[in-house]
Amino acid sequence: MQLTQSLHKARREHPDRTATICGARRQTYAELFARVQRLAGALRRLGVQPGDRLGVLCGNTDRCLEAFYAAWWAGAILHPINLRLSPEELGFVLEDSDTRVLLADDAALPLMAAARARIPQPLTAVYLGEERAPAGFLDGHALPQAASALPDARAGGEQPAVLFYTGGTTGRAKGVVLTHAGLYASTLASVCVAGRAPGVVCLHALPMFHVGGMAVVLQAMACADTQLMLPVFHPDAFLDLIAHERVVEAALVPTMLRRVLDAPAFGASDLSSLQRLFYGASPIDGTLLAQTVERMPGVELTQFYGMTETSGIAVALPHRCHTAQGRAQGFHLAAGLATPCCEVRIVDADGDELPTGRIGEIELRGPGVMQGYWRQPELTAQALHDGWMRTGDAGRLDAHGLLYIVDRLKDMIVTGGENVYSVEVEAAVLSLPGVAQCAVFGVPDAQWGERVHAVLVLQAGAQVDEAAVIAHCRPRIAGYKCPRSVEFRSEMPVSGAGKLLKYRLRAPYWEGQARRVG
Amino acid sequence: MQLTQSLHKARREHPDRTATICGARRQTYAELFARVQRLAGALRRLGVQPGDRLGVLCGNTDRCLEAFYAAWWAGAILHPINLRLSPEELGFVLEDSDTRVLLADDAALPLMAAARARIPQPLTAVYLGEERAPAGFLDGHALPQAASALPDARAGGEQPAVLFYTGGTTGRAKGVVLTHAGLYASTLASVCVAGRAPGVVCLHALPMFHVGGMAVVLQAMACADTQLMLPVFHPDAFLDLIAHERVVEAALVPTMLRRVLDAPAFGASDLSSLQRLFYGASPIDGTLLAQTVERMPGVELTQFYGMTETSGIAVALPHRCHTAQGRAQGFHLAAGLATPCCEVRIVDADGDELPTGRIGEIELRGPGVMQGYWRQPELTAQALHDGWMRTGDAGRLDAHGLLYIVDRLKDMIVTGGENVYSVEVEAAVLSLPGVAQCAVFGVPDAQWGERVHAVLVLQAGAQVDEAAVIAHCRPRIAGYKCPRSVEFRSEMPVSGAGKLLKYRLRAPYWEGQARRVG
Repeated sequence: MQLTQSLHKARREHPDRTATICGARRQTYAELFARVQRLAGALRRLGVQPGDRLGVLCGNTDRCLEAFYAAWWAGAILHPINLRLSPEELGFVLEDSDTRVLLADDAALPLMAAARARIPQPLTAVYLGEERAPAGFLDGHALPQAASALPDARAGGEQPAVLFYTGGTTGRAKGVVLTHAGLYASTLASVCVAGRAPGVVCLHALPMFHVGGMAVVLQAMACADTQLMLPVFHPDAFLDLIAHERVVEAALVPTMLRRVLDAPAFGASDLSSLQRLFYGASPIDGTLLAQTVERMPGVELTQFYGMTETSGIAVALPHRCHTAQGRAQGFHLAAGLATPCCEVRIVDADGDELPTGRIGEIELRGPGVMQGYWRQPELTAQALHDGWMRTGDAGRLDAHGLLYIVDRLKDMIVTGGENVYSVEVEAAVLSLPGVAQCAVFGVPDAQWGERVHAVLVLQAGAQVDEAAVIAHCRPRIAGYKCPRSVEFRSEMPVSGAGKLLKYRLRAPYWEGQARRVG
Repeated sequence: MQLTQSLHKARREHPDRTATICGARRQTYAELFARVQRLAGALRRLGVQPGDRLGVLCGNTDRCLEAFYAAWWAGAILHPINLRLSPEELGFVLEDSDTRVLLADDAALPLMAAARARIPQPLTAVYLGEERAPAGFLDGHALPQAASALPDARAGGEQPAVLFYTGGTTGRAKGVVLTHAGLYASTLASVCVAGRAPGVVCLHALPMFHVGGMAVVLQAMACADTQLMLPVFHPDAFLDLIAHERVVEAALVPTMLRRVLDAPAFGASDLSSLQRLFYGASPIDGTLLAQTVERMPGVELTQFYGMTETSGIAVALPHRCHTAQGRAQGFHLAAGLATPCCEVRIVDADGDELPTGRIGEIELRGPGVMQGYWRQPELTAQALHDGWMRTGDAGRLDAHGLLYIVDRLKDMIVTGGENVYSVEVEAAVLSLPGVAQCAVFGVPDAQWGERVHAVLVLQAGAQVDEAAVIAHCRPRIAGYKCPRSVEFRSEMPVSGAGKLLKYRLRAPYWEGQARRVG
């Protein structure tokens, strides 16, 4: 089980098919194959040996995709790095992972410049951008031309394939080690449940340095799709590419989807080619979901749930749960069914399995589960036991096998002895017209221990005040669940993957206190 | 990657769903799970340790399926045995594999009785049939009741999962060792390409002791289907079960499909529940395919191509190649596209890869490829090189990535210096009304080296003679390809899996000669 297998297959079975479209640049699978072989040859000449980490700090481009496959081709462990890291964080992940060679493009230059003093040495930086290589970088276009094609190292099976740093939302970043076999199985299982058609135009809108975006890349390669690059997400660019390249499949996170639906250009855009839309990485609220189904008729929706530690997708909500019939039964509120390569169970605080319907911590097991945290045996032992991955999410299974995420365990609010799940409160707030985004969490309260607090971003021009929010919630959820305080902001803090970073909103309230700083 | 994972998943996600239907007997996934645990416990008490072979000599029953999963649960290597072996062959495969425990049902009793003198000792025989255990057998129903549930040994990955003896069509049987990871990946890839829906009623009509039938079992478990058993194939029973149990998916080999279409009951049968029909294991002729499409409208067809050595399915022809539009382009003549976990290439006699369109030997690579032949390193080295499996089939790839099987290499006829592919001649003969089955092969000829010879089975009441066959072929294929001699038989020799055993027809002609005895 080698991640390079898809590239071998595509080159042999569809050599003349367009493999990548990046701006005005297109290449076939035969060309992509040849470029990967030579880039791998160049990497080997730079000293990259099997098992070494290869850093990739790039936007979504054809060159980035080539770098991914060249890493695997050379037998290296791919280390994709988030472009939104701070200079200090970049220095940390390079040092912690002992990454000696880093491929970077134009999107990475500002961060690289800011981080120069913090970057551990020796580091060989290779430029994959569109201009002349800046000072301090080797020319990533000239190197492969001077190198000869490397034979595929055929790394596979239980060998590490990817190292992703994660945990930005809680504490210091940890390296997650994913294997070839795990990513391979997860890819096949995802293709199974997404009902993907082979050989279509697929748009890469999710950052490829994140596990979700990489999952889409692996699926698209397995399907020998034509892969269209969206280097930096913007709703207008997204809509424009769909119309002009006749995109059939795309993946988004809910915050991106919200922006697409709200874009002034949405109504006039030609989305007739779009057949399947995948979304996930963070919870979607019912209002956004209903609007999506209504305003994108004919598009099949699949929700994915998972985490970096599970090679991405572990659970999927198929389209039939989004239809009017599925919604009538409330199935659209679920995260979905465990994919064919993933087991899901619910356990109590003692780790004992709970019966159907009971709420507890969600645990996942299967080949996609990480090998462990990079050089962190203690953290690994805390996260994994008997093959099961503790997710830190609270949820339940229903009689149909559907998994419902109730909340992040640490996002649960305990107020006056009652458990309040922030997701439920957020859904109530979001159903108020004019509210664009909402984050609910607990803040210290002398009387109740914790108080339900809501942070809102309003749609442009909307007029909503605290009293209106509370009044709107009152008939919809129990009184103790209603926000006691409301705060308005112009934007939310989000991660590189577009995830709302609730901890950044919450942390200031808990400074100096024992709970809820993570 | 454990084959038991599907059972864990189904028990947890769908405990109350009907898992198996066997005659009047039904059980849920919770019940199946419990029975497997206890049967595995009984096997351990009988001395079956991880890595030991466990023989299963059964028809398609719920008890047979339980035995499969109990073998994997106990960490054993499952050794499914063909019910149609001769007593001598049974003795050979038990001895060669060093199988010490054998589970057998009523369908196996005549063979067991006939083979008693040839069965190596010690062998513990366990009875899984419907009556009282006969003399010499332990009671396979009482044993699990006396045993406690065994914890899952969690055998997986590159550990051997199944030992299949094959090669009945050429020389002495060889044991094919398939791994958990290979069967797991092959199952996921097959579900991807077959467009299977989860949780439907699936009919097991292919013998489960054959790799094709086992592949359907693994897929059905991955989908947590309701699995309906057809212990012994008969077209009337097949049609009856579809109507009465509302079967959604089923798999057949072409000879079975021919019998189904020809059954007097076909026209009056209710096939309205049937959505997907999978066929494969031997070539299908265009006439049968056209009749199937015409007489089963609304049923999606998928053809599978593969071999025991590739964990079954390696290539699949999707339904769109069977539609009028696909047939107009000749796509229905292809074996299909390599599945997402399989690479296919065409090589010449020197092993060099040939370009698109050229005919050569088909080679396959991927996780499903066998670990090797059981205790046969030389045969293994002949079959595998650099991960590639030599199939012995001749074929070509087209510009769409479709694989076309031209012939078994050894079934190619060389007559007067011309290569004749028997499949092409068979298709011409089969288009003559009244012909039910046809096998074409080369026989020794003083003038031409080999002569094209056809063996036919006619439909009941048909009047066809040699001259009519030759006259029918003349305008359809080149003169040198037309049969020079025609032989009529009442039935064809077939293997336990329903494959036509052409070598049995051919061998008498080549006795004492160097070529074509195998």
